[in-house]
Order: sequence, then C-alpha cells, then structure tokens
Amino acid sequence: MSVTAAKGFTAAGIAAGIKENGNPDLALVVNNGPRLAAAGVFTSNRVKAAPVVWSEQVLKGGRVSAVILNSGGANACTGPLGFQDTHATAEKVAEALAGHSAGEVAVASTGLIGLRLPMDKLLPGVEQAAAELTDHGGEKAAIAIKTTDSVHKTAQVSGGGTAGPEAGGGWTVGGMAKGAGMLAPGLATMLVVLTTDADVPADALDTALRAATRTTFDRVDSDGCMSTNDTVLLLASGASGIVPDQDDFAEAVRTVCADLARQLIGDAEGASKDIRIEVINAASEDDAVEVGRSIARNNLLKCAIHGEDPNWGRVLSAIGTTSAVFEPDQLNVAINDVWVCKNGSVGEDRDLVDMRYREVRITADLAAGKESAVIWANDLTADYVHENSAYSS
Amino acid sequence: MSVTAAKGFTAAGIAAGIKENGNPDLALVVNNGPRLAAAGVFTSNRVKAAPVVWSEQVLKGGRVSAVILNSGGANACTGPLGFQDTHATAEKVAEALAGHSAGEVAVASTGLIGLRLPMDKLLPGVEQAAAELTDHGGEKAAIAIKTTDSVHKTAQVSGGGTAGPEAGGGWTVGGMAKGAGMLAPGLATMLVVLTTDADVPADALDTALRAATRTTFDRVDSDGCMSTNDTVLLLASGASGIVPDQDDFAEAVRTVCADLARQLIGDAEGASKDIRIEVINAASEDDAVEVGRSIARNNLLKCAIHGEDPNWGRVLSAIGTTSAVFEPDQLNVAINDVWVCKNGSVGEDRDLVDMRYREVRITADLAAGKESAVIWANDLTADYVHENSAYSS
Repeated sequence: MSVTAAKGFTAAGIAAGIKENGNPDLALVVNNGPRLAAAGVFTSNRVKAAPVVWSEQVLKGGRVSAVILNSGGANACTGPLGFQDTHATAEKVAEALAGHSAGEVAVASTGLIGLRLPMDKLLPGVEQAAAELTDHGGEKAAIAIKTTDSVHKTAQVSGGGTAGPEAGGGWTVGGMAKGAGMLAPGLATMLVVLTTDADVPADALDTALRAATRTTFDRVDSDGCMSTNDTVLLLASGASGIVPDQDDFAEAVRTVCADLARQLIGDAEGASKDIRIEVINAASEDDAVEVGRSIARNNLLKCAIHGEDPNWGRVLSAIGTTSAVFEPDQLNVAINDVWVCKNGSVGEDRDLVDMRYREVRITADLAAGKESAVIWANDLTADYVHENSAYSS
Repeated sequence: MSVTAAKGFTAAGIAAGIKENGNPDLALVVNNGPRLAAAGVFTSNRVKAAPVVWSEQVLKGGRVSAVILNSGGANACTGPLGFQDTHATAEKVAEALAGHSAGEVAVASTGLIGLRLPMDKLLPGVEQAAAELTDHGGEKAAIAIKTTDSVHKTAQVSGGGTAGPEAGGGWTVGGMAKGAGMLAPGLATMLVVLTTDADVPADALDTALRAATRTTFDRVDSDGCMSTNDTVLLLASGASGIVPDQDDFAEAVRTVCADLARQLIGDAEGASKDIRIEVINAASEDDAVEVGRSIARNNLLKCAIHGEDPNWGRVLSAIGTTSAVFEPDQLNVAINDVWVCKNGSVGEDRDLVDMRYREVRITADLAAGKESAVIWANDLTADYVHENSAYSS
C-alpha cells in the first residue's frame, strides 16, 4: 500500500527521537528503478523552509532516487544553518544507501517553524531507516510523517483496474499524505509522496502532477493558512515496464490526489464538518475558485456550519467581497440541496435543511456563465482554537 | 454626549419591539441646522443591504436632516420588498418630524441578514422616537443600535480644546458606533453616526470623513468578515456658527473615528486580546497594509495569541503569502517589543515575551523602505466560535 504499492519502491518509517514523545518521526522512500523520473510541486509561500529550497533544486534535474521526510520540526525560518542541516541530511541518505547521490535526494520536513532540527538524533535515524527499508514499508512511512494528524493517509489506483498490460493495466499509482492544519491553496497540504511503477519520463510526470494538484490539493482550504513546507512529489520507477496512455496516467494521478485531499479535509484539526462548496454558473473558472475560496475562508460562516445553522446570509456577504461576475439580485444558494436563497433573497424554508451529518454541501449559483469549481473546507470549532492555542505547533 | 455633544442635534433611542427580547432597537438622530450638510462612507461589499442602497442615494445630495437606525434586523438580501420597507421608514420619519423630506432621511439597519423587518412595530416606533427627541438623547441612541455589543460606544472632540472661537475652538465633533462582528476593511464597522456643529460644507465633510475612515475603521480587522450594512455618516449643523480650519477639523474627525474604532476592537465578539499590528519599513503604504491584513487574518496566529504563545513562525508564514516587497532572510518580527525573529530566523528568546495583558503588539519589519501602517485585530477564541455558532446572527 501507500508509496510501496507500486513496484520498484521500498520504504521505512521509524522513531528517531526528533519528537519528544517518542512517536515515529522519520520516513524514507527509495526508488529502486530502473527509472528515477520525478516531478514536484511546492508551496507558493515566499517564506520557504530549507527542505523546500533544497528539493526544488533537486527536482530541476527531473531525477529523485530517495525522499527523506521528518515530522517533529519544519526546519523553516532557521537561516543558513537550517539549510546546512537539510544538506547534511541528504548527504547522510546518499551515504547510507550507497551508490546514491545527495543531489538526487529530496528532503521534506514538517512541524514547528523556527526551531533547528536535532541532527544528533536525525542522522543516526537515517541509518536506521535505511536498514529497515522493505517493499511493504509504505504504511510505516505514512505513519512517521504525521504531526497533528489523527490518522495516516494513503491511497492507490491501478491502471486499467486489475487488468494486465494488454488491457492497458499492470501499473499502479500509490501515495501517502500528511496535513491537518495550515491547509490552504497554493499548495493545500503539507507533505505528499506519490509513486508509480509506470514508465513515465519526468516531463510527463510534471504535466500530470500539476494538472492533478490544481484541482485537488489546491482546492482544499481548511483554515486559510498557507504552509512554508508544502511539498508534493511524484516518483516513477518504471518497474512495471509499461508505458501508460498519458490521459489514463494523468487520471490515475488525479484520482489518488483527490482521494488524499479528501482525507486531509476529513482529518483537519478540530473540525466537526467537511464543507463541499460548489460554485456553478460562473463566468470563468477563476471566478468560481475566487468565490469558493471566499466562502471557504469566512469565519462567521464556518462557525454557523459548526452550529448546524444554514445561515445563507453569511454566504452572500462572502460572495459580495469578490470581484467575480454576478448580479446580487440573481444569486442563488443551496445548503444540502435546499435552495434557501433565490435571486439574492429569501428562498425555500431554511428549516428544511438537515445538517446533522459531517459532510455539508453549499452550492452557490452565480447565474453568470457555465463554469464551475469545487472547494473543500472545514467548519470553525472551539476544538480548532484549543488545538492551536494550547501549545506551539 | 455622543451624537448630541455638538449643538444643533437631537436624538432618541427606544424599544420598538423589533428585538424579541425587548431591548432598545431604534435610534433617531435629527439635525436641526441651520446647516444640513452631510457625508457618508458605505460598505464596499457588493451585496448591499437595502438601507445602504437607499442612504447612498440620499448622500449624493450632500444633505441629511435625520438618520433612523434600527438593530434587530439588517434588512439585507430581502429583495425589492426590503427596499420598500426602507423607503417607507424614511417616509415615516419625514412625516413624524414635519417639514422634513424623505429624500434627506438616511436609514441604517443592523442584525440578521435575510429577514424582513417587522414594519408593524418599526413604524409606530418611529413616531415614539420622534416624540422623545432631546438634545441629550445621544447616549440612548447609542444604546439602541447595539446588537452583540456588550457596551455602547461614543466619542467626542472639541475643536481647540475648551477654547472659544477666538482660539479656533467653540465647535465639537461627536459620534456613536456599534459593531462587534463582521469587522473587516472596506468598511470595518457596522454603523457609525458622527455629528458636528462646525459650519462645514458637504464636500469638505466628505474629504475629512474619507481621510479619517481610511486609516481608522478601514484598518480594523476583527474577523476578516465584511458586512453588508456598514455605514459611517458625518452630519454638520453649523449651529456653532464657526467655520473651522479644515486641517483642524479633519484631525478632530480622525480622532473621533480612531477612538470609536479602538472601542470596536476592544468589544469584539468573544475576543480576549486586542492585537496592534504595525508593519514598518515597507516599500509602500499599500505593502504595509497588505502585510498587516494578512497577519490580522491568520487564524493560526490568532489562536496562538489567544494562547499567549509568541509564535512568530505563523507571522512569517502569513507575510510569505503577500506580494509585498521583502526578502525572506531580512524579515524581523517583534512581539511586545521583543525581537523574536531577526533576519528571517530565530532572534531574541521568546520566553522574554510577556503576553498576559489584553493588548498585544506585533511589529513586522519588512526592511524594504520607509512606509508603515497599523492594523488592529483580535484573537480567535472558543467564545467567538460559541457566539457565532450557537444561534443565527
């Protein structure tokens, strides 16, 4: 499962002692080839963690032989010494794996911003992880990258179902993700590693990955806060020996990304509701996304959803702050399919809205065109406040 | 005090029965002249309440003889019938006051979006309020416009201190404000009425009011949510007979606005901290405001401040989402004057930061120029979630 579902990959997850509570905190994913193609998408935050700066450079070569990921510290805002720590980690991985080059080792970190990593624990951990690599280590790796995640997140899709190469099958895309806070577009998650045994060159991986993240991780907005460490990597081993149809492959990557993105929203810090916001009949996709994000980030609405209150007035006040094409007196809003707002005014009886379940659907009809977009968000709860105020994270 | 501190104004505040709990809910402010000059600034939300649409039209004439304000219902998203209710209210005021024209009566409403006002209670209330007008009714009016406000807000400044006309004094600017949620720029409050007995024409009132709101109400960002009903009015009676120096007058208006804006932040829903965010050494004032608002709206930081945690990493991650001019490795951040982040990395010991008091000061140094701006915000608390999820508001 996870990053070892695809052939050609080994992984490990261990407790190196980076986290004071002794939980697993170091994951290693190795591409054993024959191909070492890779693509990556990183946070658009201008304050980037050292491992992001490092890995962006690595990915320029289109080859990644291994990914080392730690929880328990973001190594962000740590200055030149923090970058040296990332460099030393990559060098240690190359040394422990023998035959690898540090320039092909991607590094990812997650945890508190502004603290140096305990290298005296991390570097021995790299040796231990390298010694524990197996072709079924994907789940342990997924567990080791958790921070405030309550569950680990994995997903996989096999090309052409269970069919063999003749039917276009025989290859797999699998992946793992972590992220429970600081979830907001550009990119919308913390750390994701996807692997495939399909035989796909780096530029095609890049195309498939960017197309997939644009409509999945980039449209998850749990709390409006963008991370300094977001990293999504896609590694191809070519071990299946199959060159997939590019459209089929892109769809498989998108499916795995959508699955993982949905899991991130379902496990967001303190959340009691997952809110699916669909903006329809927009003049452009950009308009639909702008309106969706504006609704997703409205704290008053997020509180109302928590209280199971179909307060559509807060939806309209959020739409009104955007530059999208619409006329206020033509807006329609449905909550769980009840059109509580019609033509910018009172619609169907709000008492018809049943909000007892975790998933809440908001549909905003801009009546201005034919484009649409879906944004996922969470409600705002006292538990979110508690998780993010009771201790540094 | 309040709107009756300046000569030439009478006011009243009564309980008309719009609020089901029987609290005061209708305020009337009348300009008895000799001058009826007025200026207004309204929400930039494109979804505007009926009274905002009405009052914007009234203000185009530069003359306002009376303002009628109700709490207990926003009359927003109520369609053409809601606009008819606003029109009928203005007509009723003109009739009750005799000699007034509905076209010079401004209307303001606050409360839940999407509900029609109970006109059978509101219209008789107008008659009662007109009958109770006095030149000391300002405080009652300020009380009647409260919604979730825990206290009423008033302020006043006298031109040239207590000095008479010879010393440039003898005139007054006073005002009242309400607002405890949906506080965010463009405009940053719900309802404000300012009055002056200085003899100032409408265009000069407009200049002074726009200059004042730009750096006061527009820089208050309690919860990132923009109202559909924001209205700030400035009425001049000229009853002092004094034509003030324009700069002195503008400064008096700005002082009253700043005082009221600070009171709004101090009484924001569920807040336990008032956060003063000062962005310094920015390349432009726009950069400073963009960075300040980004920090002000970061839910993770707002939670950390609530927990008295000087989590400067969340400040940097917020700055990183902006388009302002800066280099990540030159950013400095102080919390309560302790420079916990220097050159984008760890600075002074965060344990030196004392956050026990209600006011918290964050200073973000962009090291990119000489401009600055101050934004006020609040922390995010479980009480905010409770106030905004337990019932519709």
